[in-house]
Amino acid sequence: VASPPPSGRLTRTETFSDAVFAIAITLLVVDLPFAKVPEGELWRALGDHWGSFVAYGVSFIGIGITWLHHHAIFAHLARVDRTLLLLNLLVLFFVAFTPFPTSLFGEYHERVEDARPAALLYGCTWVFTALTMSALWARACTHPGLLASNVEDQPARRLLRYIRGSAAAYAVGTAIAMVVPILGVALIAPTAAFFLLRSDYRALESEPVEPVA
Amino acid sequence: VASPPPSGRLTRTETFSDAVFAIAITLLVVDLPFAKVPEGELWRALGDHWGSFVAYGVSFIGIGITWLHHHAIFAHLARVDRTLLLLNLLVLFFVAFTPFPTSLFGEYHERVEDARPAALLYGCTWVFTALTMSALWARACTHPGLLASNVEDQPARRLLRYIRGSAAAYAVGTAIAMVVPILGVALIAPTAAFFLLRSDYRALESEPVEPVA
Amino acid sequence: VASPPPSGRLTRTETFSDAVFAIAITLLVVDLPFAKVPEGELWRALGDHWGSFVAYGVSFIGIGITWLHHHAIFAHLARVDRTLLLLNLLVLFFVAFTPFPTSLFGEYHERVEDARPAALLYGCTWVFTALTMSALWARACTHPGLLASNVEDQPARRLLRYIRGSAAAYAVGTAIAMVVPILGVALIAPTAAFFLLRSDYRALESEPVEPVA
Amino acid sequence: VASPPPSGRLTRTETFSDAVFAIAITLLVVDLPFAKVPEGELWRALGDHWGSFVAYGVSFIGIGITWLHHHAIFAHLARVDRTLLLLNLLVLFFVAFTPFPTSLFGEYHERVEDARPAALLYGCTWVFTALTMSALWARACTHPGLLASNVEDQPARRLLRYIRGSAAAYAVGTAIAMVVPILGVALIAPTAAFFLLRSDYRALESEPVEPVA
Repeated sequence: VASPPPSGRLTRTETFSDAVFAIAITLLVVDLPFAKVPEGELWRALGDHWGSFVAYGVSFIGIGITWLHHHAIFAHLARVDRTLLLLNLLVLFFVAFTPFPTSLFGEYHERVEDARPAALLYGCTWVFTALTMSALWARACTHPGLLASNVEDQPARRLLRYIRGSAAAYAVGTAIAMVVPILGVALIAPTAAFFLLRSDYRALESEPVEPVA
Repeated sequence: VASPPPSGRLTRTETFSDAVFAIAITLLVVDLPFAKVPEGELWRALGDHWGSFVAYGVSFIGIGITWLHHHAIFAHLARVDRTLLLLNLLVLFFVAFTPFPTSLFGEYHERVEDARPAALLYGCTWVFTALTMSALWARACTHPGLLASNVEDQPARRLLRYIRGSAAAYAVGTAIAMVVPILGVALIAPTAAFFLLRSDYRALESEPVEPVA
Repeated sequence: VASPPPSGRLTRTETFSDAVFAIAITLLVVDLPFAKVPEGELWRALGDHWGSFVAYGVSFIGIGITWLHHHAIFAHLARVDRTLLLLNLLVLFFVAFTPFPTSLFGEYHERVEDARPAALLYGCTWVFTALTMSALWARACTHPGLLASNVEDQPARRLLRYIRGSAAAYAVGTAIAMVVPILGVALIAPTAAFFLLRSDYRALESEPVEPVA
Repeated sequence: VASPPPSGRLTRTETFSDAVFAIAITLLVVDLPFAKVPEGELWRALGDHWGSFVAYGVSFIGIGITWLHHHAIFAHLARVDRTLLLLNLLVLFFVAFTPFPTSLFGEYHERVEDARPAALLYGCTWVFTALTMSALWARACTHPGLLASNVEDQPARRLLRYIRGSAAAYAVGTAIAMVVPILGVALIAPTAAFFLLRSDYRALESEPVEPVA
């Protein structure tokens, strides 16, 4: 059977969230380094800012994967209540905030003393994104009226474990960044990818919608 | 019974509004202070700009809650007419304007003479947002063709009182900000939250959409 | 009877257009003057930039009204073809461009020699927005398969005249701006509003969608 | 018969993609040159930056046409799987990145030594956009469950050839830009337009949706 049609309210929450994700992921580009460089030194100047490009890439992957998780979660909701709307706003708060620590880290990661605070702010933003995401899914799972009826208990609980696992992995990445900033930050991207590929995204999925002939 | 399906026109007004809300709430991050700081002073420099972060947080909460109210209002409309579209544009005008007074307040709140004008502009933006929001809902309530048929009179009128109450509370916050700028501005966030939690948001809500088995 | 349900393709063109309109209208705020002002001179500094705020207001009204027209046009389409998609992209080109001449005019309107080129660029952007908008509607009207079946010939042709009238009025405003820049620019807002109120927006409208009990 | 109704998941991927396209295409304007110019030199200053306006125009056309292709592809999908979502994120990565090489090229195209690296980065962004786009369509075509049932084999394969052809043409444009930067970059716009007009966009199209009387 087909998955439940989203209510109007659900759709609108998704539209708003999609727009915030899309703007945050596109705004990252605004802060890429673009200073006046002396004649003939463009390549070298771009190379000097390699940290900004690493942070840009990691943040793009991070927001992209958070969107995929958000997408998977909302595809299995039947409705939203106020608590879920507020938790969703909290997720969006951290997502919308990411461009700031991304620029900050790109700018300051090569300074001995400033790299650590910049990496801490960067890493914590991702930890909190994952934590609020897991709170969102936990709330949906423990209030069955919110969940679509075709979502099974076992894989739902496993997805929760995976999202929490990613929060823990981000925390480890942040801890490593306290010693070697760029390494800890770079670790966040494969970590996010790992937990995405391991998560029971597929098992949760509703049946493919058959094309109407 | 199910809530009325939104007409195409209604949907599009929501999409446009959602996008404006989403952009305004995400653009707030662009103006967070990011000046060149001397080596080893990143933490201190960020701390020096605590006012910007307070203003950022208050504006995020303010726009988020305005979106929730907007969402609640449009979930109970059956259609929109031109007057409603124009009132909605007016709401969006104040919402889209918020990043400007937010940066301004963050930048100037610690200067004795400039804190007051900055707080006045900031506070008035929120007062006008709430006033136009209440005009939107008042228009919908007094023109029954615009309202969905399952909206009851009593809670609808109470919601109006709460939105107007929030406008009054923002005005009080603005008045307090004329004496102690940062206090008045900070008061806007809990005020908005209070009126959200008090408002008959839940009572207005259409029945939960049952998942299709 | 109900108005025709929009096809998926139509919906997506509207979503994309809504997003461009929403971003353009919200990006206007980014260029509002926000220079470092000397202690105690915030009010005066903001007052000095009154031209920027006038241009901001006019552009907000202009984009808002263009969205309303766009909204009215698309509400009466049954489908889109490639030509319509390309014309729509052209409309969006001018809409997305507006923040640039808006900042430019705000920045240079008080300089004797620079005010004219700035006003010319500003005015022409609006003339072209209206011209491409009228081409969009003309194309839809002359290819009946594109139009919804409940749109009547008479009011459709009158709407075309009104959109073209607004293009002519913008041209007159631009010509006046060649003599008195700020006056010509300010005239664009009431002109747009006038043609909106006169246009057969209401007469074109499909029947109100009855709420489902 | 009517084309298959998009599943909720498909719709949401389109909304997110539309928002990214819309933001990227609108953000281009933010980096248009807007430096302080000496009194009476506005026209000349704008003229001096003609390269920025060329790059702006080419990027607008490029993103617009990429959106049209994306739109055509998604209109013929029945559902999306995770691989398609990841490929789509990759397309959006290059689309969201375009404002950066666009500004860079506008800024540095007149410097003998810096024009080449700037043009290389610009051209490669378009090559990768087209390559990932063709990977997206190839994946959909080779996994029939993803494709709507009314899409015919012959035109689908021809569309793939055209998208790949545009990638090759962008590569040639980039190579030409290594010799004459502005020429190679300018060539990208007509190339994109050529492949759009040649592509079997029309043949792929589902039947026009008949207006409901």
